[in-house]
Amino acid sequence: MNTSFNGLAVLGAEPALPHRLRLGQHNFPSWERYEAAFRDIFERQYYTNHGPLAQALEQRLAERLRVGHAICVTTATIGLALAAQALGVKGKVIVPALSYVQTAQSLAWAGVEPEFCDVCEESGHLTPDSVAPFLRDGVTGMLAVNLWGGAADIRGLQQVAERRGIKLYIDSAQAFACEIGGKAVGGFGRLEVISFHSSHILGAAEGAVVCTDDDDLAAHVRNIRSNYGMGRPVPVGKTGNGRLSEAQAAVALMNLDDLPELLARNHRQFEAYRSHLEGIPGLQLVSPTGVSASNYQNVVCLIDAQRFGLSRDVLISVLAAENVEAVGDLGIGAEWRKAGSSGTVLPNAERWCKSVLQLPIGAQLDEGAVERIAARIRLAQRHAADVARKLGG
Amino acid sequence: MNTSFNGLAVLGAEPALPHRLRLGQHNFPSWERYEAAFRDIFERQYYTNHGPLAQALEQRLAERLRVGHAICVTTATIGLALAAQALGVKGKVIVPALSYVQTAQSLAWAGVEPEFCDVCEESGHLTPDSVAPFLRDGVTGMLAVNLWGGAADIRGLQQVAERRGIKLYIDSAQAFACEIGGKAVGGFGRLEVISFHSSHILGAAEGAVVCTDDDDLAAHVRNIRSNYGMGRPVPVGKTGNGRLSEAQAAVALMNLDDLPELLARNHRQFEAYRSHLEGIPGLQLVSPTGVSASNYQNVVCLIDAQRFGLSRDVLISVLAAENVEAVGDLGIGAEWRKAGSSGTVLPNAERWCKSVLQLPIGAQLDEGAVERIAARIRLAQRHAADVARKLGG
Repeated sequence: MNTSFNGLAVLGAEPALPHRLRLGQHNFPSWERYEAAFRDIFERQYYTNHGPLAQALEQRLAERLRVGHAICVTTATIGLALAAQALGVKGKVIVPALSYVQTAQSLAWAGVEPEFCDVCEESGHLTPDSVAPFLRDGVTGMLAVNLWGGAADIRGLQQVAERRGIKLYIDSAQAFACEIGGKAVGGFGRLEVISFHSSHILGAAEGAVVCTDDDDLAAHVRNIRSNYGMGRPVPVGKTGNGRLSEAQAAVALMNLDDLPELLARNHRQFEAYRSHLEGIPGLQLVSPTGVSASNYQNVVCLIDAQRFGLSRDVLISVLAAENVEAVGDLGIGAEWRKAGSSGTVLPNAERWCKSVLQLPIGAQLDEGAVERIAARIRLAQRHAADVARKLGG
Repeated sequence: MNTSFNGLAVLGAEPALPHRLRLGQHNFPSWERYEAAFRDIFERQYYTNHGPLAQALEQRLAERLRVGHAICVTTATIGLALAAQALGVKGKVIVPALSYVQTAQSLAWAGVEPEFCDVCEESGHLTPDSVAPFLRDGVTGMLAVNLWGGAADIRGLQQVAERRGIKLYIDSAQAFACEIGGKAVGGFGRLEVISFHSSHILGAAEGAVVCTDDDDLAAHVRNIRSNYGMGRPVPVGKTGNGRLSEAQAAVALMNLDDLPELLARNHRQFEAYRSHLEGIPGLQLVSPTGVSASNYQNVVCLIDAQRFGLSRDVLISVLAAENVEAVGDLGIGAEWRKAGSSGTVLPNAERWCKSVLQLPIGAQLDEGAVERIAARIRLAQRHAADVARKLGG
């Protein structure tokens, strides 16, 4: 393996890494534990329909997150659609224009229109100031988003929601194990949805949990989740199959056991990036803000193309040649965002969307690789003119 | 174990079966194959996001069903919601009032109203005659349902759809491996959705496939399925995470390998029920109709309470005491069905809903048990007066 730092793969050097390194967490237990868990499912011959592992997972999550109800569902997108339906939001719901497409799309399934809103320039998250201009007629809710191990100003938004009589709920897909003011994410707003996609710290292949302290709301979510209803029957307008399978629950339970080590590893890797990326002109590592504890499950940088010498998208191509998966676009098409935001200009969200770059972190990242990745980024910046000649600006 | 037939558990005898026998298929491969499949996933460390097993499953299904596109999704309910969205049905869609709640609920997520329609008195399925009175203004589609190993008069409905310029698509959740006129279910209408829930013959814990020959429609379904889109990008109004995980695909692939044996076992069990249930007054076994090959994955009887001497619901209690899970209600609330059918009386659907009884069939059914179950049903009919005194009419 080539560990010298004297070249870039796009300029003919060997790639920094021998195999493609994927973004994200991809946390796996040992084969022995994985096998034991699947043997257990096999012997019980109980694959799905709110089985014993799904129930155990719900109980452990409710205890850990200190919420009255932890309701596991098959994906966060479906959890958010169920949530919008259960909350009965109507008309328009405020969502940040800086988020993943799922956030806004969940509203579409519930027949609600997204009101795209700008984010805070410094944090990239929602704050009372950023939502103020968007609290228009017809807005019945706010769907805040906690991104990249950080959080929106949830307590400030809660006050806005109470003052305006609208419903605040939270897309905490990325925020498992984060805390705000010492309190676990999951217990804020009317309801929170946390994802267990494999790319997150508590992976379950696919999966998510809907958290709430509101008994009525929980009964609604449970009845919408399963076509046949669960728990005390409450009338719901729509139902859908959003069950978590036993295989999903098994993987989540194992990762929950491993959580302290996973959090420590993420933190260590994040700090390694911080140290090796320091001082690169035009590159700013985004530290999680708004939280008292972070899961450090994402490494997010802002690339200032002017100062770095290359655009964010060119840097992604440079890293792809190094076998490093890096991701920019959050997936909300600019056109759609503009159409949904009543024509209002959203300068902060636009700037973040254009400059944000995610780098790999998690189980598949050999810790020595951080230094090599950072070194290639530094080289790309130093030799920006050569790279630009080769790849275009 | 008590194998004598001289008593009923509700009247004090020992239960017919020592452990509770669940309805449905619950097909499992051997532990060796199951372990090998999960080791393979573990070693690849690729859990989801249209992985190699999901792709292999799609290819095998497209070949087997002879359709251009087999698009795997996480559940049939989600598949049907994606389908309604991709087809662009609007206003009202005809659905049979005799189906599972999921059929109609899938429309709600797509913002479409169900127009509940009566079924054929003999077959319990849709026919051109049964839909004729419901082809009202605002109806843009028909969602036919193939129930219990049988099928609707799909070719007749296709002609109606063409004549009226409306879209026919099919909830074939229960119909994997069935054929109509020698052609595999999956290739009819604009699109079909087949379920892989564990209770069906091709179980994957949770899962389903959307089948179509229409390239444009397939591109729409793929783009709606994954938030980030798959394949050639086409504009879609909504997206949602409907991905099939690798664990789901692994189980489906193993059951696909076993399909010939599973079909033969189901057929054998069905014929055992036919022989042992024969001649019980007021009990009619429903033979699959409308198909040239059936998967025999359900055993459905109609109970005529007058002639049997007990209501369907009392018979369910009798069987529960025998450790036999039997199911009646299909889950569509009568109130909701009435509200959705513009006040029209739907006598055939009402009659079927009141009298239908499903009995266990599948992997967990020891074949000798059929005789014991049937014997207890026969006893219940003979001693209906005693049972009624004990349990109420």
